[in-house]
Amino acid sequence: MTRTIELYVPAITPFTQDLSVDTGRFVDHCQALLAAGAHGLAPFGTTSEAASLTLAERMTALEALIAAGIDPVRLIPGTGCPAVGDCVTLSKHATELGCRGTLVLPPFYYKNVPEDGAFDAYARMIDAVADDRLRVYLYHIPQMSGVPITLGLIERLMTAFPGIIAGLKDSSGDWENTRAVIDAFPDLATYSASESLIPRNAAGGGAGCISASANVNPAGIRRLIDALGTESEAACHEQVSAVRTIFEGLPLIPAIKAAVAAQRDDVGFATVRPPFVAMADAHQAKIKKAVIAAGPQGA
Amino acid sequence: MTRTIELYVPAITPFTQDLSVDTGRFVDHCQALLAAGAHGLAPFGTTSEAASLTLAERMTALEALIAAGIDPVRLIPGTGCPAVGDCVTLSKHATELGCRGTLVLPPFYYKNVPEDGAFDAYARMIDAVADDRLRVYLYHIPQMSGVPITLGLIERLMTAFPGIIAGLKDSSGDWENTRAVIDAFPDLATYSASESLIPRNAAGGGAGCISASANVNPAGIRRLIDALGTESEAACHEQVSAVRTIFEGLPLIPAIKAAVAAQRDDVGFATVRPPFVAMADAHQAKIKKAVIAAGPQGA
Repeated sequence: MTRTIELYVPAITPFTQDLSVDTGRFVDHCQALLAAGAHGLAPFGTTSEAASLTLAERMTALEALIAAGIDPVRLIPGTGCPAVGDCVTLSKHATELGCRGTLVLPPFYYKNVPEDGAFDAYARMIDAVADDRLRVYLYHIPQMSGVPITLGLIERLMTAFPGIIAGLKDSSGDWENTRAVIDAFPDLATYSASESLIPRNAAGGGAGCISASANVNPAGIRRLIDALGTESEAACHEQVSAVRTIFEGLPLIPAIKAAVAAQRDDVGFATVRPPFVAMADAHQAKIKKAVIAAGPQGA
Repeated sequence: MTRTIELYVPAITPFTQDLSVDTGRFVDHCQALLAAGAHGLAPFGTTSEAASLTLAERMTALEALIAAGIDPVRLIPGTGCPAVGDCVTLSKHATELGCRGTLVLPPFYYKNVPEDGAFDAYARMIDAVADDRLRVYLYHIPQMSGVPITLGLIERLMTAFPGIIAGLKDSSGDWENTRAVIDAFPDLATYSASESLIPRNAAGGGAGCISASANVNPAGIRRLIDALGTESEAACHEQVSAVRTIFEGLPLIPAIKAAVAAQRDDVGFATVRPPFVAMADAHQAKIKKAVIAAGPQGA
């Protein structure tokens, strides 16, 4: 099976000084990501501080993207919540708006839950949305959710809901896990969470990446995708790895926002909601220097 | 400082067969807990499957308790959510209803957040509720939330919000941590999460317990509290420990619900929401036997 290798960006959610969602900067940033070469957006993921947004904020912001002319077919919003009922609300909303799919965390408060329980959470959500257009991208990020999306769980869900279970984002950072998922489920669109894995993901039959640092380097990552198998692949891979190292050892989300603020020369992009705190000025200056060296949006 | 040692019960949330909140059984169970000797209730805690409820469900169920005649002064509902905005909604609602306080988890999706960020989350919630009647009970359950309530965080919050920060529930299971909190903050009402710690908690200057198994053994735990320092203390302690051991090695929340169902001879209390699954019949039978041996509500 030959796939189009894609870059979907878990777009940051900008906030105003009073910590409201900054819809203007959000739409602007999302349009810039697509213009820079991203195939689509996965707003309201981990990088988007989605867990710090209310349901109403998430729905309003998604509507703003579409109202601004972004094709919903290029949107896979995160809709996972601790309560299945809330996940139903968000997934129904996104599906009715025509989104390509929804990126769905398992319920993430309780830990060590049985696989039957995780299956049941997804199954009840899908049954309650009750819309043939629903496409679910499973979100495996056990270090945050505490609930792994195991091979067994994927198999049960794909058997129970053929056509509905469309993909998986593997944020475990464990390439062997990603490879096992791709090998076991070649029909599933399996994304890595790091652009540095794009060559392996593509060669192995994966679907590309959904990466936090794509907020900063969409053009560079797209260039790597387009260069796969050509003689410029190595140089492109080096560029994306160089940008990625800017964030090593830093709190990822505040650092990504600081980097976007530096690229855009607009400190308004750097604001975070608690439980995060904005980068200290010294770090911001260092990020700014590194990001400017990498070029605007990795161009 | 001499305190009244209290039992607050993190009441289970019963569900109907279609998984709606079963308000009738919820009110009935809560009234039975108070009648059996509980000083009050901490609904919408971990044991209550609060994370699996929508905001509207939590508010409606709280209103039902008060409408049924339960004095809000005996209620400390859980109001913590991943999004501060949602915590504000629930905390404001509970405060306006006259509740004694709110039991507040830190935002619990993101892990390894800085203490400054956890402080900021509580501070913004308190500022946004903007009600002098608000009383916050901090909820330390790092094994679920991933965000510990450290001594440093407590100190900063008590300094910034004197009178508002009223207590803490220590669900870490680490008595040394509870002792450190009580010693450092004698004005704080510090509850243990296990009734087996009541003697140590009381002797050390704590406020009592908020325990899952109190759903099953409210009378027994109350008897232990009343017997503290008397010659029947040891026997009472033995009874509460015996009931507690029924749940060892079992998934706690489904087992507690199965036990209440057995006590009440009403299987309707056993239903759980995903990501939990109800106890297998064999386990239910075992629990039933153990609970019947312990007596109705530990009476």
